[in-house]
Amino acid sequence: MSQEMFVVNNVWMMVSIFLVFVMHLGFATLETGLTRSKNTVNILFKNSMVPPIGLITYTLWGFSMMYPGESFAGSFFGFSGFGVSLPEGGETSAYNEGYTFWTDFLFQGMFAATAATIVSGAVAERMKLESFMIFSVLFVGLCYPIVGMWKWGGGFLNTLAVPFYDFAGSTIVHSVGGWGALAGILLLGPRIGKYVDGKIKPIPGHSIPLATIGVFILWLGWFGFNGGSVLSADPGAVSRVLVMTSLAAAAGAIGGCIVSLFMFRSSDITMVLNGILAGLVGITAGADQMGVTDSVVIGLIAGALVVFGVVIFDRLKIDDPVGALSVHLLCGIWGTLAVGLFGTLAGVDQLISQLIGVGTVGAFSFIFAFVVWYALKMTMGIRVSRKEEVEGLDIHEHSMHAYPDINGSGFDLSQEQEAIIAEESKVKTTVSS
Amino acid sequence: MSQEMFVVNNVWMMVSIFLVFVMHLGFATLETGLTRSKNTVNILFKNSMVPPIGLITYTLWGFSMMYPGESFAGSFFGFSGFGVSLPEGGETSAYNEGYTFWTDFLFQGMFAATAATIVSGAVAERMKLESFMIFSVLFVGLCYPIVGMWKWGGGFLNTLAVPFYDFAGSTIVHSVGGWGALAGILLLGPRIGKYVDGKIKPIPGHSIPLATIGVFILWLGWFGFNGGSVLSADPGAVSRVLVMTSLAAAAGAIGGCIVSLFMFRSSDITMVLNGILAGLVGITAGADQMGVTDSVVIGLIAGALVVFGVVIFDRLKIDDPVGALSVHLLCGIWGTLAVGLFGTLAGVDQLISQLIGVGTVGAFSFIFAFVVWYALKMTMGIRVSRKEEVEGLDIHEHSMHAYPDINGSGFDLSQEQEAIIAEESKVKTTVSS
Amino acid sequence: MSQEMFVVNNVWMMVSIFLVFVMHLGFATLETGLTRSKNTVNILFKNSMVPPIGLITYTLWGFSMMYPGESFAGSFFGFSGFGVSLPEGGETSAYNEGYTFWTDFLFQGMFAATAATIVSGAVAERMKLESFMIFSVLFVGLCYPIVGMWKWGGGFLNTLAVPFYDFAGSTIVHSVGGWGALAGILLLGPRIGKYVDGKIKPIPGHSIPLATIGVFILWLGWFGFNGGSVLSADPGAVSRVLVMTSLAAAAGAIGGCIVSLFMFRSSDITMVLNGILAGLVGITAGADQMGVTDSVVIGLIAGALVVFGVVIFDRLKIDDPVGALSVHLLCGIWGTLAVGLFGTLAGVDQLISQLIGVGTVGAFSFIFAFVVWYALKMTMGIRVSRKEEVEGLDIHEHSMHAYPDINGSGFDLSQEQEAIIAEESKVKTTVSS
Repeated sequence: MSQEMFVVNNVWMMVSIFLVFVMHLGFATLETGLTRSKNTVNILFKNSMVPPIGLITYTLWGFSMMYPGESFAGSFFGFSGFGVSLPEGGETSAYNEGYTFWTDFLFQGMFAATAATIVSGAVAERMKLESFMIFSVLFVGLCYPIVGMWKWGGGFLNTLAVPFYDFAGSTIVHSVGGWGALAGILLLGPRIGKYVDGKIKPIPGHSIPLATIGVFILWLGWFGFNGGSVLSADPGAVSRVLVMTSLAAAAGAIGGCIVSLFMFRSSDITMVLNGILAGLVGITAGADQMGVTDSVVIGLIAGALVVFGVVIFDRLKIDDPVGALSVHLLCGIWGTLAVGLFGTLAGVDQLISQLIGVGTVGAFSFIFAFVVWYALKMTMGIRVSRKEEVEGLDIHEHSMHAYPDINGSGFDLSQEQEAIIAEESKVKTTVSS
Repeated sequence: MSQEMFVVNNVWMMVSIFLVFVMHLGFATLETGLTRSKNTVNILFKNSMVPPIGLITYTLWGFSMMYPGESFAGSFFGFSGFGVSLPEGGETSAYNEGYTFWTDFLFQGMFAATAATIVSGAVAERMKLESFMIFSVLFVGLCYPIVGMWKWGGGFLNTLAVPFYDFAGSTIVHSVGGWGALAGILLLGPRIGKYVDGKIKPIPGHSIPLATIGVFILWLGWFGFNGGSVLSADPGAVSRVLVMTSLAAAAGAIGGCIVSLFMFRSSDITMVLNGILAGLVGITAGADQMGVTDSVVIGLIAGALVVFGVVIFDRLKIDDPVGALSVHLLCGIWGTLAVGLFGTLAGVDQLISQLIGVGTVGAFSFIFAFVVWYALKMTMGIRVSRKEEVEGLDIHEHSMHAYPDINGSGFDLSQEQEAIIAEESKVKTTVSS
Repeated sequence: MSQEMFVVNNVWMMVSIFLVFVMHLGFATLETGLTRSKNTVNILFKNSMVPPIGLITYTLWGFSMMYPGESFAGSFFGFSGFGVSLPEGGETSAYNEGYTFWTDFLFQGMFAATAATIVSGAVAERMKLESFMIFSVLFVGLCYPIVGMWKWGGGFLNTLAVPFYDFAGSTIVHSVGGWGALAGILLLGPRIGKYVDGKIKPIPGHSIPLATIGVFILWLGWFGFNGGSVLSADPGAVSRVLVMTSLAAAAGAIGGCIVSLFMFRSSDITMVLNGILAGLVGITAGADQMGVTDSVVIGLIAGALVVFGVVIFDRLKIDDPVGALSVHLLCGIWGTLAVGLFGTLAGVDQLISQLIGVGTVGAFSFIFAFVVWYALKMTMGIRVSRKEEVEGLDIHEHSMHAYPDINGSGFDLSQEQEAIIAEESKVKTTVSS
């Protein structure tokens, strides 16, 4: 490879890093928008801490567990030592010849944190902050690198007779997050007021603009999530991935729109937004293997699935405030299986391998998360008190409101302060020049 | 061209795709911010559906109509068949040697949807949702590719003795959107309460932060809209385009600020924001032909024009909630004519060609849009009922509020739910662990 | 250098331009979120005008003062004439061989405006608009290019025996902004109601989501601020800078979180957000010289410093609504000194040079800003009236509210308009079709 090609590959991968990074902003605004304003600071706190936690744990041991190289790597677990440092040969990546070691590390590190971010929204509005933080460290720091290694680090899923295929992580990232979320929700229970007397009470989020901003940013970020997963700037491969990713997102929007229109007789924007995300998650496993029609069909089905998913999870009293299970778990599985049904890899053998991947990753992630949540529940507890939940996590966990002077006691200063000012202005001269 | 150069061109064009994509988020937040909160879900629904509609129609037939190649192309209309697929020769673009077919397709597809997004804001707060959706499909799917072909697909505007010049679409994109908006507004009429007893009543939008976010994002996106329109990563050409684009935007802000300060004796942020957009639209037709002084002058005049435009359209009782006509129609025309007045192409012959382009594209777009709107008005209607308009499109068209717990009956849960909780808490034990 | 390498360098620098540009959006949303809604339009107006002012003054004379080349350059001041134009040799940058002159100009121009943006937040909620605007022109147009020239334009700080080192501007950009802010705050005095009867009254900002969005966008932008400061796409150097930048940001979040948890016994999201920014400012001076451990330690200390800073400035009754002094001044100094303490340049001689740089730049910037602020105070005044401050700058300086129908007299139209509609609807037929 010429030096020029190396540099341009590296530039492309750096752009992909930026795009995957902004997905964290996308998740933060989406989850904030779809939950109530009394819990907004709490969501934002979690989603601001998850990328730092992800990066630091990935630096300390995660990267070394996920990409152990040849130093110590079984089929199920690997580890090549604590910390990261440039390989002896210099700055070239050990795993990808086309760009630097640091680029490789940062791209993978930005990926890692997304799994925990998916969980954040699903357990929102009732989870104790400290418990979520501890879970995040373990989930990003152990669960994700272990299952990631199974496929992307050269583990057993990559060495099946017909290797399991997961291009950018429908299973390895999205369903992992979804399984962690499901385990959490089952142990947490639904929010107060959600299921009352056998009826499902919708609890609308507090800001549709924030949710919409989140989805647009996530779509943007997915260009790097999928486009960067080509692991080079190969023009044919990357541009095709971008087109298929966009078509699946577009079809997901249309699928979600039409199905929700028939089911609810209403133009439900949350189903359009979740439809976009569903299409994106659905195409992620096979974005490099699909054609135009494949991508549109995968997206349409994902968009429909997400609507059914939201309804079914609600019937099962599995309370997921942001629809994370429908988007990331359901469509993560759908997208993974779609690799066996559509595109260049379609076939029974591939479909079986896809089922093996979905099953083993799902079993491990769910059990891992369940054990962690259960241990936390038995020790420090995972759910806030009834009073805290009704009054809001913001004021109890963070001693503040997200919108003090809009939601508060008036347009502006508190009454107390107004009184002080009135008094003060009698005595003092003005401060202003 | 070396393989390396091909790859770097392709990377640049992919970055431009991302930037044009985020313009849809920019339009969504700008239009949402400049309208009332009772119509916020409606705006966001439209702006979330327009990019999917644009991409899918462009895939089905639009791209083939706009860039028909040699298979069937008259001077006014072309078509090379339904669907998109890689050309026989492989992944190279048929029209641009410097990057892949898929990159070309996606860049053009992202452009296509912007025309309808411009209309979305202008007809906001009183347009029926279904009617807008049908209009969008026809406008993005037929009107835009037809006039686009006239210039960029090799049609008659490109084969004039002195070819019409429109670098990145002051006319082909922005004024097309503007004409579609004008036709819609004329048939819709103004919002209730806007013009009362011969007086103009300002109806302020509900969120200046959202509007400001939108303008910054649009400026960002314009780097790809104009920079990508170089259709290569040619360093001299692209970087010059970026500078001229930025200077026009900056000058537009200053023009809008100063003129509105003189006219309204107030520092009106909406005029600064619209001034930035005016400068951007104004430079778009000739961003690759202008020098520093040209760009600043074009931007200053655009910034002034947008203020006059807002005042004049209001005097004419043409009610445009977001100023789309002043920005995209007026400054689209201004920018197109400016190519004949400033920069390397300036001259009488060029100016005449610019007038021909403005006139023919304007006539076709306006008539196309007027016919579609009129047909919709005569059949399903284009305007919501008085009751729906006063109470808000969100609750009537979408059965939801954009900010349920901020605008609603209190800080948090509805009174009904609070009552249920109070009752429930007497009987049951707590759900929390 | 091959043509291909030139093109890819140029693409990378253009991407960096876009990232530095979005920092202005980041500052706008951060500062808006951390102040009250009655002053929101004012903040957004300032932050929308600063980039245009910065770009235009940089075009007119700033660039020529900061990078005078050999035409006229002393050790303390240089100037090569008004305006910018392509150098005679063509489009190649005079200072950097790897990309075009226009790319160089725009990258530096985007940098320039950040210094004034930092000031904007610190003097928020009580500063007269016109005074801030005049200050901005002088600060961006004179102060920044002069001190910038001292180091980056080849001035005396660059020619010390052991040259002062400031990779991307912990001192040259961030502390300059911080010193300007400090001078302004000292002459303005605190906001009404902030320090009452010897007690510090917190005045919370009005939107934590906006503040959080701002910090994520700033982190994103920093990839270009630091990554672009390599001034080439050199893959090893740039990717290392990105990693160290991210690790410092992550460590800053954790530092801010832990220290504030111990000090305030609360999970304070503003300290997490400011911790991220602190880590970013802290790593900026030496991002290309640090290793993994260095970066984490620098970030952790910066995150702690920002918490102490906020407390100490409050005790000194230096009222900084957004924490700009703690982030940009304190951590700007810290980051600059850290170059002498950590990484490849660490050493006593380097530390002394760093102190010289911090001291001379600080002295000049503070005195420059103080003189300008003082002259403004003595002539047109710098502080709004008591009435304006209490009622809000938006309504007095801009005649509008940021959130008219959320904060206003009801959900929607004003009562006056509702009355008009009620009356109107008796007489007229409906407007709708």
